[in-house]
Amino acid sequence: MQAEIITVGTELLLGETVDLHSSFLSRECVSLGIEVILHTSVGDDANRLLEVLRSAHARSKLVFLCGGLGPTMDDLTKETLAEFIGVNLVQDPEVTGRLERYFSNRGRSMPANNYKQTFVFPGGTVFQNDHGTAPGLAVSHHDVTYVLLPGPPNELIPMFEKSVRPFLLQQFYGKQAIVSQPLSFFGIGESLLEEKIKDLIQQYGNPVIATYAKEAGVVLRLTSKAKDERSARALIEPVKKEILARVGDFCFSEEDRSLEEVLVSSLAAQGRTVSVAESCTGGLLSELLTSVPGSSEVFRGGFVSYSAESKNQIVQVPADVLEKHGTVSFQVAEILAENTRRQFGTDFALSITGVAGPASVENKPVGLVYIGLKEAGSPARVYCYRLRGTRRRIRLLAAKHACFILQQRLKKGETTR
Amino acid sequence: MQAEIITVGTELLLGETVDLHSSFLSRECVSLGIEVILHTSVGDDANRLLEVLRSAHARSKLVFLCGGLGPTMDDLTKETLAEFIGVNLVQDPEVTGRLERYFSNRGRSMPANNYKQTFVFPGGTVFQNDHGTAPGLAVSHHDVTYVLLPGPPNELIPMFEKSVRPFLLQQFYGKQAIVSQPLSFFGIGESLLEEKIKDLIQQYGNPVIATYAKEAGVVLRLTSKAKDERSARALIEPVKKEILARVGDFCFSEEDRSLEEVLVSSLAAQGRTVSVAESCTGGLLSELLTSVPGSSEVFRGGFVSYSAESKNQIVQVPADVLEKHGTVSFQVAEILAENTRRQFGTDFALSITGVAGPASVENKPVGLVYIGLKEAGSPARVYCYRLRGTRRRIRLLAAKHACFILQQRLKKGETTR
Repeated sequence: MQAEIITVGTELLLGETVDLHSSFLSRECVSLGIEVILHTSVGDDANRLLEVLRSAHARSKLVFLCGGLGPTMDDLTKETLAEFIGVNLVQDPEVTGRLERYFSNRGRSMPANNYKQTFVFPGGTVFQNDHGTAPGLAVSHHDVTYVLLPGPPNELIPMFEKSVRPFLLQQFYGKQAIVSQPLSFFGIGESLLEEKIKDLIQQYGNPVIATYAKEAGVVLRLTSKAKDERSARALIEPVKKEILARVGDFCFSEEDRSLEEVLVSSLAAQGRTVSVAESCTGGLLSELLTSVPGSSEVFRGGFVSYSAESKNQIVQVPADVLEKHGTVSFQVAEILAENTRRQFGTDFALSITGVAGPASVENKPVGLVYIGLKEAGSPARVYCYRLRGTRRRIRLLAAKHACFILQQRLKKGETTR
Repeated sequence: MQAEIITVGTELLLGETVDLHSSFLSRECVSLGIEVILHTSVGDDANRLLEVLRSAHARSKLVFLCGGLGPTMDDLTKETLAEFIGVNLVQDPEVTGRLERYFSNRGRSMPANNYKQTFVFPGGTVFQNDHGTAPGLAVSHHDVTYVLLPGPPNELIPMFEKSVRPFLLQQFYGKQAIVSQPLSFFGIGESLLEEKIKDLIQQYGNPVIATYAKEAGVVLRLTSKAKDERSARALIEPVKKEILARVGDFCFSEEDRSLEEVLVSSLAAQGRTVSVAESCTGGLLSELLTSVPGSSEVFRGGFVSYSAESKNQIVQVPADVLEKHGTVSFQVAEILAENTRRQFGTDFALSITGVAGPASVENKPVGLVYIGLKEAGSPARVYCYRLRGTRRRIRLLAAKHACFILQQRLKKGETTR
């Protein structure tokens, strides 16, 4: 089935807002087996929107419209669609009640403007908005289904997950169940991952196997359809097992989660703590770990020992070691990890020293990175990488590799101690 | 004049890539006085692209096409446009020579595929690509100008700035000069900023005054047109002066730059150094500062004192102060800044302690943040904020406020010591 996505808002055409909804909804459509054939962004302009609706109607069976459901005069998505399909919107008592309660719970009376948001399509579907005032709407006309969603991401995304995905499944698959199983990988490129499982991708159509590259790492998604969830799940299991037998060393989660989230969860589950010493990543590893709510359970703190002096004076790397081996060296990574673990009194410490670029350092090439892992009671281990990309990318990959190293250590449990 | 932007690539419709080009080009068009009326993303599909070109041709005088200029079979933007306007592409000797040199400089012979990229529109314009193999192209047909740009951002953006902007100015404004003057603000919201200069926005049409919100901060842009650059500049000066007289306290740069870039430059210009101690921002302030190339000149390092113990053991905040006032307090921010400056031996130290959320800490509300600034020879100053938003946003605003505080201090020069 073919779908298209229309985002509405003059701020998009002024370049003030980046359209993230089209990529979000497109990914969701891929996982539902729906083919997206076009994205369009249009301003708050009824005539232009009508023109776009006419083209969409002729092409697609499913049309998403995002934005323009607000209470003001320039919010005209719903009204324009109603005009296009030739229906009159009707006031919905349930939506009205919910909106009035929304305001009274905040100690305010409902502004007259907002009554605009209580009007819906006759015979259509209403999706409750748990995070704002504009309800989502769906209506079918001449075999085309229109799904209208509010513009703010913190309203659209939860609404999609809670109500719209089930609606689409019901609408387009009826009693069929769809199960989607992500696998998160790091340390293997998308091409190599695909290469390793190419025969499986070709052999299986149900589940469909698809990979997509994230900013760091790759997510592989297995999606199956069957008469019920249990049967759909059963189709996935043997394929998942075969994939993990081949490339499981690079799989850090059977959910679509970031490395830092998985690492913080693993540390918390094992009751372990970590501290870090960063040079070329300049605080990024700490920032990633502490971006996870609840990280204070496992992350004690860290040093950003950016200058050579601070490596010596703050983290006590001996001056002769810095002198002899340079700040970007196996030995400095080792001592940074050891001293950091001791000073913070944590179970683990990670250290990173390297050359993020753009210029080389100590005649060492851009992208050379040493990562140390020290664990109480074991000697420190140091890993060496040659990373490629911009300064920003090298820093990100270095911080993610550090997370991956510790996550792999935790995955092995106590046995390798 | 009306323009539209077409981005080409199946990865956009799969949601694997977010379309950043449309917002980039839209902002550029705004600053050139060109109205963008539509964005479209289409897959690597010649028939669909032809359909989109037909609609665009009927609507717009300027059509950008981004992506699909690569060497492979599925790159078909140029070929499809040639079909649409009914011309045959011709091989360009200069482009061929440049491409052959591109490969020979890398010690490789040019793959046969890449000869596809040496074909251009007869009578069209070629934009040299300094960062890749696909040249940019422009061609006019029936009073519509098509501008074709390569998909990778690190090729498109420099090409636009170096060649396409001057081309558009020449094409659409002839001998008129356009001058654009950005002013970067922090600590004042977009609405309040607009409110303060509303009369100026209404009074002046040349220069046009436009504001747009960045992730943190606001950029205001003055754009004037005149017969030459000097006259255009002269139109801007009095308006800029009036704006700065009203809201100059919030302006940290007369370029469109990030706070951390400006701060690193200011520190370098004054030969000063800084260190930091971070609690709730968890390394983000360090990360921002060290994301700027050359920051090692001015940034010595920092503490991420995330746990209460690390504030005591690593940064030596006395236990009784932590006990009495709590980790999120004026006193702790003050001592963190003082001790950090002393330990790192820097001219300045910044400290941040606060509640990033989602949960409150020590019965202190989410968003409460204390920022300390210590300068050698002066008592520490502590600033208190009540920030709003998600955990991610509170952390970002806290780190940016810290940059702003120090930048404002540096702007005042030596006089306030």
